[in-house]
Amino acid sequence: MHIGIVGLGLMGGSLALDLKSYNLASRIVGYDRNQKHCQEALELNLVDEIVSFEDLKKCDVIFLAIPVEGIINALQNLQDIDPKTTIIDLGSTKEKIVTTCPQKIRSNFVAAHPMAGTEYSGPLAAFRGLYYDKIVVLCNTEENDPFHKERAENIFVTIGMQIVYMDAKEHDLHAAYISHLPHAISYALANSVLQQEDPKSILILAAGGFKDMSRLAKSSPTMWSDIFKQNKKNLLDSLEVFKKELRTAKELIEKERWEDLKEWMQKATTLHKIL
Amino acid sequence: MHIGIVGLGLMGGSLALDLKSYNLASRIVGYDRNQKHCQEALELNLVDEIVSFEDLKKCDVIFLAIPVEGIINALQNLQDIDPKTTIIDLGSTKEKIVTTCPQKIRSNFVAAHPMAGTEYSGPLAAFRGLYYDKIVVLCNTEENDPFHKERAENIFVTIGMQIVYMDAKEHDLHAAYISHLPHAISYALANSVLQQEDPKSILILAAGGFKDMSRLAKSSPTMWSDIFKQNKKNLLDSLEVFKKELRTAKELIEKERWEDLKEWMQKATTLHKIL
Repeated sequence: MHIGIVGLGLMGGSLALDLKSYNLASRIVGYDRNQKHCQEALELNLVDEIVSFEDLKKCDVIFLAIPVEGIINALQNLQDIDPKTTIIDLGSTKEKIVTTCPQKIRSNFVAAHPMAGTEYSGPLAAFRGLYYDKIVVLCNTEENDPFHKERAENIFVTIGMQIVYMDAKEHDLHAAYISHLPHAISYALANSVLQQEDPKSILILAAGGFKDMSRLAKSSPTMWSDIFKQNKKNLLDSLEVFKKELRTAKELIEKERWEDLKEWMQKATTLHKIL
Repeated sequence: MHIGIVGLGLMGGSLALDLKSYNLASRIVGYDRNQKHCQEALELNLVDEIVSFEDLKKCDVIFLAIPVEGIINALQNLQDIDPKTTIIDLGSTKEKIVTTCPQKIRSNFVAAHPMAGTEYSGPLAAFRGLYYDKIVVLCNTEENDPFHKERAENIFVTIGMQIVYMDAKEHDLHAAYISHLPHAISYALANSVLQQEDPKSILILAAGGFKDMSRLAKSSPTMWSDIFKQNKKNLLDSLEVFKKELRTAKELIEKERWEDLKEWMQKATTLHKIL
C-alpha cells in the first residue's frame, strides 16, 4: 500500500514511523508547505520521498495531518482522486470538516480524531508509539463507503488504537470540554503569571502541579487558533460553564464559606472515580 | 537525633522515609489524630513508634506536616518545648503561620514550604525521594536562632533539596500564582465537566492534556480549603488576573480576531523560555 502524508509534524511524522514499523505501507511519501519540515522529515527517515501535492494524490491512502483550516482547503483540492483512494484526517474538530467536505469524495473521506499528542510540534517532535493504546474517534462513518471505513479502521487498530464512533456534532461538544477548554485555560494561566512584576521569582517555585497546568500553553498557536475558530460556539459555551464554576469558588472564598468550599472541592474529586 | 513528626500523611510519611534513609534520625516518632493513619504508618515502617503529643515534645526536632490551620494550633501547644528543640512546618502558606507563632518559640520555629507533593494523601501515598531535587522555601529566617535555622537547612540539604529564602508575604503572593490558583482552576475544570449531561462520554476521550489539567482536582479538600482560607487575599487577586485573561480570550474568539488570539497564545508560549 502506498501512503501519502500531508503535514510532516508531530502527528504526521509519528504516524509515518508507526506505519513503517507495523509494515502497513510499502512506500510512504510526504508533502509539507514548510521546506524545513520536508528536509527534516527526510533526514529523520520519516518518509521515503517528498512529492508534490499532485503526485501525492496517486497514493492508496492520504492522511491529512495539518491544522484544521488546512484540512478544509486540502479536501477541496482532492476532488479528482481515484474512487479507491481513502482520505483520513487527524484534525481536532470534526463538524465543519465533514460538512464542508465535497460530496464527490465524501464517501472516501474518513473523519478521525486521535486523542494523542504532545505540546511539541514539527518533525523533530515525532516519535514511534504516539498512538499506541490511545483512543481515536471516527465521526459520521455512515457516510463512508465500507471499503474506506474498514481500511481506516484497520490502520488505526494495527497501530494499537481503540476506536470510538461518534457523531461529529457530539464530538465537537465533548472535545471542547476535554481538550479545547483546557488549552484555553492553560494559555490564560501562563499569561497570568507572565504579567506579574517578577515572573522569574514566581516560576522558580514551580513544581509538578504548575508544570502540568501550564504544559498545554506550549502548544502551537497556529494550530490552536484554527481549532478555536472551528469550534467557536462549543468553546465559548464551555468557557461560560467554567467561568461560572470559578465564580462559585470566588464567592465561597470571599464569603468565607469554608464548609461549602470543601463540598465544592469534594464534588470535583469525584471526577477521578470516572476517569 | 530524635525526630517527631506530627501528621503521617504524604508529606510527613515521605519525610520520615527520607530521614531514615539518609541516617538523619536515630529514632522517629509520630503523632496523628487519625488512628487509621497511625496504624498504617506503623505497618509501613514510616515511624518507629506512635506517641502522645506530650511525648513528641521531647524530640530534638518536631516536624509539623499537617494542614495549615492545624499548624497554627499546634504552635500554640508547643510553647513549653526545650529551648534546644527545633520546630519545622511544611505548610503551603507562610504569613499567617509566622505572624501567629507564639513569640516564646518564634526563634525555634523554622517556617518551610517544600515545593513537592502529589495529588494523593495519607500514609499509603508516602514514598522515598519525594523531596529529592526539589525547592524548599524558608521564610523570615532572620527571626530564627542560627542553631535552629542551620539544623533545618542541614536536614533539607541532606535529603536533596535546594533552599530558597523568601519573605513570608512574598512567598504567599508567589504561591498563589504557582500553586493555589492552579488548584482552584483544576477543581473548577473538573466540576465543569461533571455538570455536563453525560460526563462519562466526555471523559472517555480524556488524553494526557486533560489528565494533567484535572490531576490537582484529586487533592484533599480539607487541606486545600485551609490553604485558600489562609491565603485568601492573594488567591482572590490572582483569580481576578486569571479571569481577566480568560475574558480577553473569550472576546477575541467572539469577535473572531484570530490574529490577535494567536498573538495572545504566542505570549503564553514564552513562559517556557523561563520555566
